Amino acid sequence: MRLLIKSGGEEAVPEWRAAFAGIAPHLDVRWWDDRDVDPATVDFALVWDPEPGRLAALPKLRAIFGAGAGVDYILRDPLLPAAVPLVRCVPPEATQRMGEFAVWAVLSLNKDARRMAIAQAGARWDAFDPPFAAAERTVGVMGLGAMGMRAAQMIAGLGIPVVGWSRTRKMLPGIETFSGDGERDAFLARCGVLVCLLPATPETAGILAAPLFAKLPRGAGLVQLGRGMQQSTRDIVAALDSGQLSGAVLDVFEQEPPPGDSPIWSHPKIIVTPHAASTPSRQERARYVAGCIAGLERGEALPNLYSPERGY
Amino acid sequence: MRLLIKSGGEEAVPEWRAAFAGIAPHLDVRWWDDRDVDPATVDFALVWDPEPGRLAALPKLRAIFGAGAGVDYILRDPLLPAAVPLVRCVPPEATQRMGEFAVWAVLSLNKDARRMAIAQAGARWDAFDPPFAAAERTVGVMGLGAMGMRAAQMIAGLGIPVVGWSRTRKMLPGIETFSGDGERDAFLARCGVLVCLLPATPETAGILAAPLFAKLPRGAGLVQLGRGMQQSTRDIVAALDSGQLSGAVLDVFEQEPPPGDSPIWSHPKIIVTPHAASTPSRQERARYVAGCIAGLERGEALPNLYSPERGY
Repeated sequence: MRLLIKSGGEEAVPEWRAAFAGIAPHLDVRWWDDRDVDPATVDFALVWDPEPGRLAALPKLRAIFGAGAGVDYILRDPLLPAAVPLVRCVPPEATQRMGEFAVWAVLSLNKDARRMAIAQAGARWDAFDPPFAAAERTVGVMGLGAMGMRAAQMIAGLGIPVVGWSRTRKMLPGIETFSGDGERDAFLARCGVLVCLLPATPETAGILAAPLFAKLPRGAGLVQLGRGMQQSTRDIVAALDSGQLSGAVLDVFEQEPPPGDSPIWSHPKIIVTPHAASTPSRQERARYVAGCIAGLERGEALPNLYSPERGY
Repeated sequence: MRLLIKSGGEEAVPEWRAAFAGIAPHLDVRWWDDRDVDPATVDFALVWDPEPGRLAALPKLRAIFGAGAGVDYILRDPLLPAAVPLVRCVPPEATQRMGEFAVWAVLSLNKDARRMAIAQAGARWDAFDPPFAAAERTVGVMGLGAMGMRAAQMIAGLGIPVVGWSRTRKMLPGIETFSGDGERDAFLARCGVLVCLLPATPETAGILAAPLFAKLPRGAGLVQLGRGMQQSTRDIVAALDSGQLSGAVLDVFEQEPPPGDSPIWSHPKIIVTPHAASTPSRQERARYVAGCIAGLERGEALPNLYSPERGY
């Protein structure tokens, strides 16, 4: 069996190979651009942002594994073979990491970690009263998939009030949930900090912009852990400068990497992180992919399949 | 009744007065250096780092309130009147804030937030695999008072394995605890991240230094939320440079503020925070002090008294 990999560049291949060696010794792990590989011998692909048409040129492909939880960077290939199952990469570690990142980001806003980092960069002792009392601000989690649910539960576990919103209604013990377009404004009005964990779909494109920010309480915080296509960086900066938002942690961007002259880098109210919220290690992802392939060999269904109807 | 305040400087007095006005209207709140105040009319003092002898010059003083949870900055007054009760300021919000800060600091190390902040300062997109898998490193909490216990529980609630150490044995559901000198090395050997929440006492002076670091697993993280007199900054920097420690969050320092030319400010493995881990807001502290005074008036005992035997 043969697996082509495009994730982390060619220099990451030895590490991928080592990760798979211990758990799937019969798998022949090859770099995406390996010219010695006959396309007709490729069974699986593990990819991020493949060049259009490349996957369609693999005639025996049995499954495509995304290198991350979102597959939008694969879906933009207009020649993506619809008949090949597309598996979202959500090992348990990714969910745990995302929950931890959401907790870290919310606390970074409540404690104004950006202000502390700026003071450290200037070798300045900037003692200030933390702007928010502990557990004083309600956190709203938008998007209650596996990641959003875990994040909501972890934040609530710290004694912080949490509300949640999702397209279809979800039930979570101890967390008040809202659903659908009809309850969205009521949800937003409750969010002292808004955490976005929505998938990238046509409906979520451009959602994090001025009209939504206007529905938040004045001075709300924003944590964006979804996808860059959901946000208007210009509107985020304007809302921060007007005081409608008090701070933001942005892990994803309209363009990645963002341009060097983007205002986000030096903005005193924005923490920039490099699309790092839930990246599982290669070891963790290899274990997940090897487990999926082993299941397939035993005749089991692949988990976490992309659904065209749902859009993710 | 009259309360003298030395915390936050004279400019903070109006805010203190406003905080007390709603909850203790009969309390006359005055600035520490108010020359119109007759020392014989002062009932209470709320202080941080009072000039030696000043408290002893208040003949009718009924209680001294520390402005923080630690009273070491008050104890260094050699003329401190031993007969006047000294109350540590630990409102419930301080414990909650400390727990949140410990969570934030541990996650900051596991996700290498310092590396992300340095990249942002240089407008650089520095995508890297987070060095530690979620919940992979055991966190050890040293000091299991009200703050340490809350921190340990909050960290454990995220799915992170937690061990604890205290001078006298403490029991915590779901957390393995160690106690006394005899079990200290066994505890340290387990700490992927060590969180120090010890009080300032003669026994804890200088404890965070090379001999202790050598007992930690190589590459451990350090979170120092205790007191600056417990640490050797030189040893911390040396341990980071040798790789014995992989990162540190320091909230307290031998000298506060640290000198502008201290290596801590620019060190790529140190996050500096300005003694901000658990500072409750003035409103929260005013509520706590007003509650203590009201209790005293009803004949109740003062809570959280400093004990000379215990040392804190």
